[in-house]
Amino acid sequence: MQDLISVEDLSRGEIENLFSTVDHLRRTPDVFRHALAGRVVCTLFFEPSTRTRLGFEAAAHRLGARVLSVSDMRNTRLELGESLLDTTRMVGFYCDAVVARHVEDGVMHRIKETVRVPLINAGEGQIRHPSQTLIDLYTLHEHFGAIDNLHVGIAGGIRYSRAAKSLIAGLRKFSNIRLHLVDAVQEMDEGTEFPRELGELNGVPALEYSSMKEMIGHVDVVYVVRVQQEKFTDPAAYQRQLNKCRLHRALLSRASPSLVVMHCLPRADELDTDIDDTPQNKYFQQARHGVVVRSAVLLRCLDADSRRGAFGRGKSW
Amino acid sequence: MQDLISVEDLSRGEIENLFSTVDHLRRTPDVFRHALAGRVVCTLFFEPSTRTRLGFEAAAHRLGARVLSVSDMRNTRLELGESLLDTTRMVGFYCDAVVARHVEDGVMHRIKETVRVPLINAGEGQIRHPSQTLIDLYTLHEHFGAIDNLHVGIAGGIRYSRAAKSLIAGLRKFSNIRLHLVDAVQEMDEGTEFPRELGELNGVPALEYSSMKEMIGHVDVVYVVRVQQEKFTDPAAYQRQLNKCRLHRALLSRASPSLVVMHCLPRADELDTDIDDTPQNKYFQQARHGVVVRSAVLLRCLDADSRRGAFGRGKSW
Amino acid sequence: MQDLISVEDLSRGEIENLFSTVDHLRRTPDVFRHALAGRVVCTLFFEPSTRTRLGFEAAAHRLGARVLSVSDMRNTRLELGESLLDTTRMVGFYCDAVVARHVEDGVMHRIKETVRVPLINAGEGQIRHPSQTLIDLYTLHEHFGAIDNLHVGIAGGIRYSRAAKSLIAGLRKFSNIRLHLVDAVQEMDEGTEFPRELGELNGVPALEYSSMKEMIGHVDVVYVVRVQQEKFTDPAAYQRQLNKCRLHRALLSRASPSLVVMHCLPRADELDTDIDDTPQNKYFQQARHGVVVRSAVLLRCLDADSRRGAFGRGKSW
Repeated sequence: MQDLISVEDLSRGEIENLFSTVDHLRRTPDVFRHALAGRVVCTLFFEPSTRTRLGFEAAAHRLGARVLSVSDMRNTRLELGESLLDTTRMVGFYCDAVVARHVEDGVMHRIKETVRVPLINAGEGQIRHPSQTLIDLYTLHEHFGAIDNLHVGIAGGIRYSRAAKSLIAGLRKFSNIRLHLVDAVQEMDEGTEFPRELGELNGVPALEYSSMKEMIGHVDVVYVVRVQQEKFTDPAAYQRQLNKCRLHRALLSRASPSLVVMHCLPRADELDTDIDDTPQNKYFQQARHGVVVRSAVLLRCLDADSRRGAFGRGKSW
Repeated sequence: MQDLISVEDLSRGEIENLFSTVDHLRRTPDVFRHALAGRVVCTLFFEPSTRTRLGFEAAAHRLGARVLSVSDMRNTRLELGESLLDTTRMVGFYCDAVVARHVEDGVMHRIKETVRVPLINAGEGQIRHPSQTLIDLYTLHEHFGAIDNLHVGIAGGIRYSRAAKSLIAGLRKFSNIRLHLVDAVQEMDEGTEFPRELGELNGVPALEYSSMKEMIGHVDVVYVVRVQQEKFTDPAAYQRQLNKCRLHRALLSRASPSLVVMHCLPRADELDTDIDDTPQNKYFQQARHGVVVRSAVLLRCLDADSRRGAFGRGKSW
Repeated sequence: MQDLISVEDLSRGEIENLFSTVDHLRRTPDVFRHALAGRVVCTLFFEPSTRTRLGFEAAAHRLGARVLSVSDMRNTRLELGESLLDTTRMVGFYCDAVVARHVEDGVMHRIKETVRVPLINAGEGQIRHPSQTLIDLYTLHEHFGAIDNLHVGIAGGIRYSRAAKSLIAGLRKFSNIRLHLVDAVQEMDEGTEFPRELGELNGVPALEYSSMKEMIGHVDVVYVVRVQQEKFTDPAAYQRQLNKCRLHRALLSRASPSLVVMHCLPRADELDTDIDDTPQNKYFQQARHGVVVRSAVLLRCLDADSRRGAFGRGKSW
């Protein structure tokens, strides 16, 4: 039985094994069509997310598993002050794997104590989002052949983005990555310090730029992140931050012709649709990989349990 | 690969072929039990609708497909201004057919540009609702043997009803239908013109009446539509409109004994439950046809894809 | 075809048969893996409940059925005043069994009139909750071997708890149960009379205590029920009621070492987590039984229909 709580828990070898499983799934999908038959996967979203929830649910269905879906737990009796952990424990009794999302940093480790089936983190607070990072890394691996030695730029609301921070943690597994950031300490954050551990990779500090325009010529990949409008009280400050980070077609002329543009979608205004038809667009490819990478995650996490029967609770039932 | 965006896109022959599939399904349901095994259908409702969503989901299950369900997309991150079309594109990557509903007229053609799997319109704005119309037409076909030459009356909030307008578009595919309407320009709409294309069928203008009572003696079928109370600011105006359109048992004495009453349910006050036990009631039969007609729609739209594997994305994966 | 509306409708023999089915499922789960293949079960929750909904959905999946899920019907067009009973009738046309929850006492019998497939009550108003009671009774049966002759204590917001009242109704099926209650007429209810039928078992009045501390030494089982904070206008009155009913570890020293503690989870403050690690904790075992007991319920209710095909509507289609 294996959990997936954070990309930090995976070794480089485990990540590469997972990429091999993805390649295997893509070549011979039918082989896996009943791989999880008789299993029940529960998606338990205390914060709603169509993209990630559907990605995991489609993955479960593609592998023959059944799905219990809790798309928005905010609607339930938890409103009455009842216990989150009683709920997760119960769900753990009901299914063979729990895919959970929650807004609070650190809650997954507490949930883990209540659940005796594999727990898969589908997004946690502002830091962890391992399935997204595996999709992002697989997309880089597919495109570049190797992730080592890349110059990766990130721009947007990095401070509040679990996708960006989890990606940085994932890139640490590879060698000689150089991290480039646009203005990671946003205007709205003035006076607060940007967490140092996010601003460096394996001891090498990130290069910081004051705008996308300045950064784009220096990177192999640019990963654009939503600027969280809802965090700004001053609309003008939001607009200034957006202008600094926003990527549109005209800026591509300043970049290497082999630049790759990534985004975990859906987007707001930070990534112009005029990029969609360019060869730089790899964000649709990321979206395309959403199911197959999560299928590999489910196979990895459920494999050790493969000898359990349909009711799957072994001796304790 | 075939979409179903509007009933207008179907020829009379295609509609009749679909009726044959429905008859085939009803006679030999077990033959189709695994027809869509390994396929994933996503119901993506930007406007909630239990009836239509469950009808499509039951149809998918009856045919062996798996279902991804988004019952109320209003709850998701789209609230944050993110892009509808990024979401539909992503969903298109995740599944083998998208069944979508949205409040905005014309949005289906934009969604279609983002989705490379069949797109099925489950209700759009105030105009299109092809699966409901196919259910309505099949119910008429089953009851009357032929739809040609019928006198069809419609009463209620026609102006805002996609079911009514889509039915009128469907009736245009048949010959010599005569359309009868109760007061289609509602009191609340005073000064606005009723769209002429809704008020005529194949060049013959609809006959208009000032009340259900006046109309009911002239028609073979009466299709009752909810009067949208939420559109009225003056409760008395709503009540006057309701009184003009409302159908109750006492009025049946003014109608032909072979009159058929239809409604797409659930109802408010425009259709009295005292009709339920009469032979005129065909609205329960419409409801009964909700799954089998939508099953035929899924078979039609997914058929051309039947050689794809479980991961179903072919070369692009 | 069999419904499950109330535990009162079951004979002691039927309850014991159901326990046998549960034992059979636990010993040989794989035998039942396709027992309901081709069937569609609809969970129709007019009041949301993650625990009960997921319990029934997991049960359906474990038996090979497909699931239509309506997790919160409050979000739908019923808001517009449309008819509950039209909706339940339609859902009855779409599936092979309806699992419904609603806040209104007595509504299940009205729903039953509209549904020609088995109807299973998943919680109704403040009185009925038969699947929870069957879980509770099975947990007692498993632990004690026999339910007869037990001293059962109940404490908490009994007046508003369907789980507590349904349990009392279930205990009536057994012999010589003695019922103990903590202060069932709450301070907030002053002047109102506690329903006599809840306060006695087979003619023997319940023993009433003013606190958990006083009661706990006299019972074999204590069933703790949430105190409904939302029913209190005075926070201090809620706190007094909570203090009377609350169970925590220190109180266990006053109880028999063989005491069993039950709760249907999730909990608020009425049951302290310091009980979780004691041998008295049987509430996790209740939670563990949530799927297998509901599986037995589905098998019982759907069995008489087992010769129907995939479209399952027989002649009427």
